[in-house]
Amino acid sequence: MKYCGECGALTSLTIPQGDTLPRYVCQQCATIHYQNPKIVVGCIPEWQDQILLCKRAIEPQYGLWTIPAGFMENDETIEDAALRETEEEAQANVTLTGLYSVFSIPHVSQVYMVFRAKMPELKFGAGEESLEVQLFDLDQIPWTELAFQVIEETLRLYAQDRTTGQYPVHVGTIQRTKKP
Amino acid sequence: MKYCGECGALTSLTIPQGDTLPRYVCQQCATIHYQNPKIVVGCIPEWQDQILLCKRAIEPQYGLWTIPAGFMENDETIEDAALRETEEEAQANVTLTGLYSVFSIPHVSQVYMVFRAKMPELKFGAGEESLEVQLFDLDQIPWTELAFQVIEETLRLYAQDRTTGQYPVHVGTIQRTKKP
Repeated sequence: MKYCGECGALTSLTIPQGDTLPRYVCQQCATIHYQNPKIVVGCIPEWQDQILLCKRAIEPQYGLWTIPAGFMENDETIEDAALRETEEEAQANVTLTGLYSVFSIPHVSQVYMVFRAKMPELKFGAGEESLEVQLFDLDQIPWTELAFQVIEETLRLYAQDRTTGQYPVHVGTIQRTKKP
Repeated sequence: MKYCGECGALTSLTIPQGDTLPRYVCQQCATIHYQNPKIVVGCIPEWQDQILLCKRAIEPQYGLWTIPAGFMENDETIEDAALRETEEEAQANVTLTGLYSVFSIPHVSQVYMVFRAKMPELKFGAGEESLEVQLFDLDQIPWTELAFQVIEETLRLYAQDRTTGQYPVHVGTIQRTKKP
C-alpha cells in the first residue's frame, strides 16, 4: 500500500494517534488504510460414504487436491460463500449440514471456515479452477497430495469423527510449516 | 479504491478475465485490488453468574453497551484477537472457554465471532474505547441500550442457553434492520 487509494498520494507506515499498530496512512489526506485477515470458506461434500475433492488447476498448489473452498466476497454470508465455491469449483449443488471447523492461519492472515454438506444428487464436474473432481472413500484420500495443511488437518479430524458419528465444531490454529 | 495502492495510477471497476465480479483494477500496472469481508472477534466474559459489558466511548453507537470485541488484525488468531480486545476495552484478562457464535452480517461485509470466557479474577476497568465497564446479572442486561443487533442476538441466545447449561456453537446471519 505505497499509494493512497483515495487520493493517489504517497502513504507512510506509522502508528496513528490512539492506535497501537503501524498502518499505511496517506501523507496528503490522512486516510488510514487498515489491512485485515481474509476469510476462506468451503465445505466437505458428502455422497453416501464418500467425499468430493478437487484437483487444483490454479496456483498455489497446482495439481494437488483440496475441498471446494475460496475467499469469501463482500455482501455474502459464510453459507453463500461455501455454496458458491462448491458450485464454481466442483459444479455441485450441496446442502450445508453444519459448520465443522474454524482454523486461524496467522502467518498468512487467513481464517478458514469449513462446513459439512450433503450432495442431494450424483452430479459434479471440474469447474474452471479444477483439473478434475472426484469422489473418495475415506481410506483413499490422497493424504500426500493435499494442497494445504489446513485441509489435511480438517480432513484428519473429519475421518476421526466419522468413526464416532459425532461432529463437534473444531477450532484451531495452523502454525507455519514447510507445507502451505 | 480510486487509485492503485501499488503504483498510484487510476483504477477502473471492471470484471477481470476469468472472474465473475467487478474489481478495482489498475489501469497502469493491472494490479487487481480485491475487497473482502472483515472479521470482528470478541467474548462474553463471565464472573460467577454475571457477564461483563462495555459502554462505548467511540462511534458508531457511542454510549451504548456491547461485549468486548473488535476487528481482527493481521498475523493473529481469532483467540489472540478476542483476548487483545478484552484487555484493550475492558482491562480484563480472561480465559477463553469455547467458540460460541459465528454471525455473518452481509450488508456491512463482516463476520462476527464470539467466544465464551471466564474471568479468573475480579479485575476490570474502562479502556480508552469504553466509557465504563460493568458486570451485569442476566436479568439486568440493558437490552434497549445495546449497540449492535448482532450483540443483542448473541446475548439472547446466551441467556436462553444459560437456562439449559448447553452452549452449542450458534451460526447465523444478521439481516439489515434499522439498528446497526
